[in-house]
Formats: sequence, structure tokens, C-alpha cells
Amino acid sequence: MAAEQDPEARAAARPLLTDLYQATMALGYWRAGRARDAAEFELFFRRCPFGGAFALAAGLRDCVRFLRAFRLRDADVQFLASVLPPDTDPAFFEHLRALDCSEVTVRALPEGSLAFPGVPLLQVSGPLLVVQLLETPLLCLVSYASLVATNAARLRLIAGPEKRLLEMGLRRAQGPDGGLTASTYSYLGGFDSSSNVLAGQLRGVPVAGTLAHSFVTSFSGSEVPPDPMLAPAAGEGPGVDLAAKAQVWLEQVCAHLGLGVQEPHPGERAAFVAYALAFPRAFQGLLDTYSVWRSGLPNFLAVALALGELGYRAVGVRLDSGDLLQQAQEIRKVFRAAAAQFQVPWLESVLIVVSNNIDEEALARLAQEGSEVNVIGIGTSVVTCPQQPSLGGVYKLVAVGGQPRMKLTEDPEKQTLPGSKAAFRLLGSDESRALAQLSLSRLSPEHRRLRSPAQYQVVLSERLQALVNSLCAGQSP
Amino acid sequence: MAAEQDPEARAAARPLLTDLYQATMALGYWRAGRARDAAEFELFFRRCPFGGAFALAAGLRDCVRFLRAFRLRDADVQFLASVLPPDTDPAFFEHLRALDCSEVTVRALPEGSLAFPGVPLLQVSGPLLVVQLLETPLLCLVSYASLVATNAARLRLIAGPEKRLLEMGLRRAQGPDGGLTASTYSYLGGFDSSSNVLAGQLRGVPVAGTLAHSFVTSFSGSEVPPDPMLAPAAGEGPGVDLAAKAQVWLEQVCAHLGLGVQEPHPGERAAFVAYALAFPRAFQGLLDTYSVWRSGLPNFLAVALALGELGYRAVGVRLDSGDLLQQAQEIRKVFRAAAAQFQVPWLESVLIVVSNNIDEEALARLAQEGSEVNVIGIGTSVVTCPQQPSLGGVYKLVAVGGQPRMKLTEDPEKQTLPGSKAAFRLLGSDESRALAQLSLSRLSPEHRRLRSPAQYQVVLSERLQALVNSLCAGQSP
Repeated sequence: MAAEQDPEARAAARPLLTDLYQATMALGYWRAGRARDAAEFELFFRRCPFGGAFALAAGLRDCVRFLRAFRLRDADVQFLASVLPPDTDPAFFEHLRALDCSEVTVRALPEGSLAFPGVPLLQVSGPLLVVQLLETPLLCLVSYASLVATNAARLRLIAGPEKRLLEMGLRRAQGPDGGLTASTYSYLGGFDSSSNVLAGQLRGVPVAGTLAHSFVTSFSGSEVPPDPMLAPAAGEGPGVDLAAKAQVWLEQVCAHLGLGVQEPHPGERAAFVAYALAFPRAFQGLLDTYSVWRSGLPNFLAVALALGELGYRAVGVRLDSGDLLQQAQEIRKVFRAAAAQFQVPWLESVLIVVSNNIDEEALARLAQEGSEVNVIGIGTSVVTCPQQPSLGGVYKLVAVGGQPRMKLTEDPEKQTLPGSKAAFRLLGSDESRALAQLSLSRLSPEHRRLRSPAQYQVVLSERLQALVNSLCAGQSP
Repeated sequence: MAAEQDPEARAAARPLLTDLYQATMALGYWRAGRARDAAEFELFFRRCPFGGAFALAAGLRDCVRFLRAFRLRDADVQFLASVLPPDTDPAFFEHLRALDCSEVTVRALPEGSLAFPGVPLLQVSGPLLVVQLLETPLLCLVSYASLVATNAARLRLIAGPEKRLLEMGLRRAQGPDGGLTASTYSYLGGFDSSSNVLAGQLRGVPVAGTLAHSFVTSFSGSEVPPDPMLAPAAGEGPGVDLAAKAQVWLEQVCAHLGLGVQEPHPGERAAFVAYALAFPRAFQGLLDTYSVWRSGLPNFLAVALALGELGYRAVGVRLDSGDLLQQAQEIRKVFRAAAAQFQVPWLESVLIVVSNNIDEEALARLAQEGSEVNVIGIGTSVVTCPQQPSLGGVYKLVAVGGQPRMKLTEDPEKQTLPGSKAAFRLLGSDESRALAQLSLSRLSPEHRRLRSPAQYQVVLSERLQALVNSLCAGQSP
């Protein structure tokens, strides 16, 4: 496989990953003798996503990789020739074959910066034809990356600093690269880890995972493992039959919990034993395949206590249905009582991992003071950004040949501010809190007055004050 | 670039594009001696997306490509070894190195089939370890493809058969592959074309495009094209200076429309002339950069009439802001009046293309009877599926070693139906309308009775009747 030689190749956009009109406009510029006119575009968004008051700028690394590799191959040019008029001057295609981004300059907000409406995330200058062609791929690379990073940051703000957040939305993403992008940039936005192995391999994102219901249901209890023995953690002494040891503990656990010893599902217990044999130092139990209280929890305790006797400590349990907070509180109580009963203090602090369509509202509840939840797995809500699944980024021409350009239109919101921008951030009096970030055209009178931070107060004109007020009314970072 | 040798390589998922727990469970199965147990999983969804009553099954081609290429490379196995326990038996990694899908069987709904809740889109059987590893990539490849195809089909049903639908959401997608997937499967779902050039090159989707505001704003009117001359369409006779010819027509157009000849923006006109010189047989105008009525429309007419004098016919105008329906109706009136005034009948049928955050509601209005809109460009609403940005597909173990498996849990909706399924479709009495499709476990008494279509009526038990009722209450295909 060709792609295997370059693990990052498939994550890189290609020049033809663009809208056809970029190519038709390229021909228009070329025919008008303007392909090499000096032009500047700005990439920005008009409103903060999710009704919030900030965004994180992200995707710059992917943009740089794309720009460095930007070359139209013969097959690309041939395809364009097949969709452009048959009598197009062949010299145009020669021009395309020679294109690269060596004359393109990009100024950008650093990866992960706070960004506000109207502030350019990217300022792209260079020959008109090529910087026009870059519009769609740059928007594609920046918009979703920034959106999902912002979404992750909002979830992190809601969760607070203590809860561990695991992104697990690969299966809900827009195909392979949507998933990779989501995992990469939710980590940038404040998640601790991802379930996505490829994001670990290619992007260095810490990976984490538990087990699925299929693992549990695949066992009936009648399976005979080829090697049922587990050696003690310290490595000395004879191994023991873990399933038999767990069976002994099950009787004590059921007596302690007031359950009949036949109630916990034998297949689930066999699955837990199998997982523990593979991961004696990282044993986790998924509790809700049959019944948390009558099966999952006693089976987990039996296997965890059997492991404990061998010197291993179980690391976690996972819940994937029902009232997650309430169950976590009750499970922690059971852990504490069992820790006391069986004199295994480490059992008190076994991690409780929860998942199941957790959105901002559910997260706030799970992160409330006193919650016994330790790790929160979020898939759909972080990856698909259901509150607003696109950033609405735009890429607008602001100058050609040094002359400002603007779009007027009859829709005031879609008008653009002409000229290259300079962005300023207004800080509160203690300088610890950004009140607003705003972007002023280098052509505007305000811009000419804003040369030093000391001049901020002077220019807090009515327009700026209104902007600050509107931003402060929202959720400020 | 390695990927360039195989244009499709980057769109193919790779084995490590999976959740870590698939790998930990693989180790668990292997340690338990069950890696090669015969297992069957089913991929299905629990509720139709968007509150509708159907979905289209899609993504099968990508799945087949993924399964055929499925091999863990050395680098993949090394990465897994780095995140699994350090004392993992090396024989496990040897097992992974030898894995492929040669023993995996997939039964599937044909690409583009109607699908209903609980009906397996894929039935995947083979060795337990490998079919478990396939869970995340298959869900990733099927779920969004099916979701966006379904969304496109809904939009097509709303638009009716006449309106041309153009997908243009690449910049709103989840990165490069999200965009490619969206373009491919919105075409499957009923769109006519896409703006995404790569989807044309790699997947054969018809591509279409217009021009952007940046093209218009890049012209001030003072530019001098290197070759202002355009030859007549028939190829005989001398060329004419198109800009000069358009200037002559502008005076007549402004007199006809009651506008001052200075009102239309000279830069916009220069842009239209430049586009017309590049695309004399496919001239289109974007009308709303400055003002539709005082600039875009008269400039378009002037250039279109100049082209017409040379034997060329303009093909379209595009609107991207304001009340699209109302403007389309008024523009058509202007076209008709100008066609009569200047004796150019073809002007009456110039296509009116609209775009600007068009959702289902806006589309219904644009597609209403009498609408003069011809082509509707949809980006965000088709690609991000904002009403429901994920399908919620699941992949559940239904049998191991020929024995049925189920997940019970305490959440009834998450319970699974054990055993391999057979799907039946119930047709209305004229057989032209599917009333319902349902999936019965091969274990159930209903299944045993359902051997021929004639027996459908017999088994329309209370459960089935309720299902039919609920489906018929929704939007049925």
C-alpha cells in the first residue's frame, strides 16, 4: 500500500480537495492576466460557536503540511481539464502544473489561541490565483478543528480540572479523517485522552479504553481457558487458578451484599476473569451487561478481590446506561463498605468510568461537587458538536495589489471589513482576564490610534464598548 | 508523496483507526483461547434518523475496500505493544501480524437500500478476535455514509424531482475525508452534483460550481486584460472587445431598468467580463456582491447581451443572500422583460442558482410550485446533518459458536435481540409501497412461521401491527 510509506499522507488534504469554483475562478484570473497579482485573504468566523463567547483557533499544523505539499499532479491537471471548457488555452494548465506555495505567506494565530469573531485566524497573502485556490482546503482544515477544540474546551470548563475526560467518538465521526481530526483537536481543547488508536499512533494523543458489552456477552461461563493460572504480582510463589479463586470470593461478596450466589451471571464472571488474566495490573469491569447490582458489581468484586489476594489492584469499573451519577454514588458506597469488610483499602478508590450520550447538561450533573465519577467518556457530543455542527468559517479577500477590497451585499452580516487587519486584545484592569479581542482594519482611524496598550482606554469608543459588553454578557473564557 | 500512487488510499480506513478497547478485548480473547471462536456481529441502528421513517444503507464499498486491505503492519503492532502491558505474551503480537479478513464473511443490504431500525445493515461473521476488531472502523464507515445519504434523500424528497441540488459543504465537513464522504453519499442519496472536485476525480460524482464574491471584489474596473478580444461563437468573423461591447449594452440595460449608467459597479462588470472571456459558453454571474438590483443584475445583463451578440448564451446567475425565493421571482420577471425588449428569447430560461444556509424548511419554500429557482446549493445542512449529526449505529454480538448472545442491561432500549436475523419487508396490497421492514431473530417463533410472503398476513401479530402503525405514522418512503 502506497499510503503505508507515509503514515500522515492520508490525513493530508490534496489540492483537488476544493470547490470547483476555485478552479473556474483560477481560469478567470489567468485569462484576465491577474494570476500573479498580489492578494491577501483572511480566514475568520462571524459568531462564536455554541452561543459562547470564544473559540480556540486550531488546525494550523494541518494547514502548514498542506501548503508545503501543495502541487497539482498530472492526473489532477488532467481531471481539471476534463471539467473545464475543451477550448481552454493549454498555457493555463502549464501554469497550474508549475504552481506551489513558495510565494505564499501565512500569518496565523498560534495553535490553540483564543479567537473572537472577525479576528483573522489566518492571513494568507501571495499570488491571487494560488491564494484563491487555497480557500476551500484551508477552511476545511481550520473550521472543524477549531470547532471541536472549542467544544472540547467548553466541556472541560464544565467538567472542571479534576474529572478525566475521554474522547470516544470515532464511530460517530464523518468517516476516518473526521474521527482522527476530532480526536486530535479534542485533546488540544482539554480532553485527557482518546479511544482512537490512530490518533495515538499519528498524533501522540494518549489513548485509553475499557471493554465492550460484546466481550462480556461472548462468554457463557462454560469456556475453559488454555491457561487458567495467574502468578502473584510480586512474581514469587505458585500461580493460582483465578476463576476458582474468584468463585470462592463470590460467595463472600454475595453474603456481604445479601445476594444469592447463583444470581451473578457466570458468563460475565468468566469474561471478567479472562480480562483479568490478560490485564492483571489493569483490570476493569463493565458492569451493566446484565444487571449492575445483581451481577456486574458482585462479579467485579469477586474478581477484583481474587486479584487483590495475588497482590494486584483493579483499576476501574464502567457504567454505560441508567442514572450514571446515582449509580456512581451507590457503587462508591459499596466499594467503601467492601474495602472495610475485606480489609482492602485500595478498593475505595477504584475509578468509576461513565459513558452514554453525555452532553453538556449531563456532564454538569456528573461533575457536580461530591460526584464519585472519576472518568467521563464522551463520544457523539464532542465529535459531532450537535449544538452547532459547523463553525461557519469564511475566507475573504481583503486586499489586491495593496488596495483594500470588501463585499458590500444587502445583508449587513455578510459585509466584510476591507483591508488587512491587526488584532488587539482588551484586558481587564488586573490583566488576567481578556475582555475582548477585536480586529481593526489597518485602514481605520481606530487602528491608527491603537499603537500601544496604554491607548486602549482612549479608544474605547461606543463601538468598542458595545462589543465588550456583548462579549462579557456571554460565557467568557 | 507516497499517497499519490494510490488516489484512493487516503480515503481507506486503516486497522488502527479503532478504539483501544478493541485491542484490549482482542488480547482478552486471545488469552482465553477464544481468538478463533466463530462469532457473528450485526450492525444496525435503533431509530431512524431525523425523526423520519427510513434510512438509506450506505458505505458498503468503503467497508469492502477496508476489509480487503486489512493487515496490521509492523509499525501498527509495535504501537499496540507500546500501549498494552509490557509483559504481554509476544505470541499475541505474532497472532496480530498474521491477521487478515480472509475468514470473515459479510452479508449486507445492497448499497443505497432502504433500511429500518433493527434490520442489520451488515452481518459480519468470522473469528471472534478479528470481527471484534472490525467494530469501530465498520461503524465509522457505515454510520456517517448512511446518515448523509438519508439526509440527502430527505432533501431530495422535499425538493421534488425537478430542482437541481448541488452539494457544496466541503468547507463545513469534519476535515478532508468528512468532505469526501459527504459529497459521495449525498450524490447517492439524490443530489445531482457536488462542488467537491476530489469527489469528481475519485468517485465520479458530477462536479459543478459558480464563482465567489472574492472573484468579483478582486476587480476594481481599472484592470487591463492582456487579450480583451472574444471571437464569435461560430468561430467566423473578427473578434470584438467584450468589455467595450458590454459597456454599450449597459446603457441600453440601464435605460430599460430605469437606472443611471453610473450605478452598476465597474469592478463587478470587469469581473463578469473576465469570467465571460474565460467561459464564453458557460457564463454565470454572482449578483449580490454589491447590490443585486442596482449593480449585479444590470452588469450581468450587459455582459450576457454582449455575449449573445457574439452567439453565446449565458447559463446562470447566483444569489447568496437575502430572500432567495422573492428575488428569484423578480429576476425571472426581469429576464422575461429583457428577453422581449432585446429580442433574445434564451434569456428567459437562464438558470437561477441560490445558496445561503438552506435547510429543510427553506428548501420547501424554494421548491414550492411556481418557484423560479432552478438550482439549489446546499452545504452545511446536508453535510453536518444538523438535525441529528450522528446515526447512532451499533455493532452487537449476536452469536458465538452458533449459540445466541444478547445484552440485557436495565435500559430496555439498549437490550439486543439474540441470534442471527432475517429481515422481512411488509408491502401494501398493491406491492408498490413498503409498509415496514423488520428483523426477526432466526430463533423466534415468528421467524419460523415466516417462510413465504403469503404468510405475512398470518403473523401480523400485535407486535408487528404496532410496528407498522408507528412506521406509517412517520414520513414513509
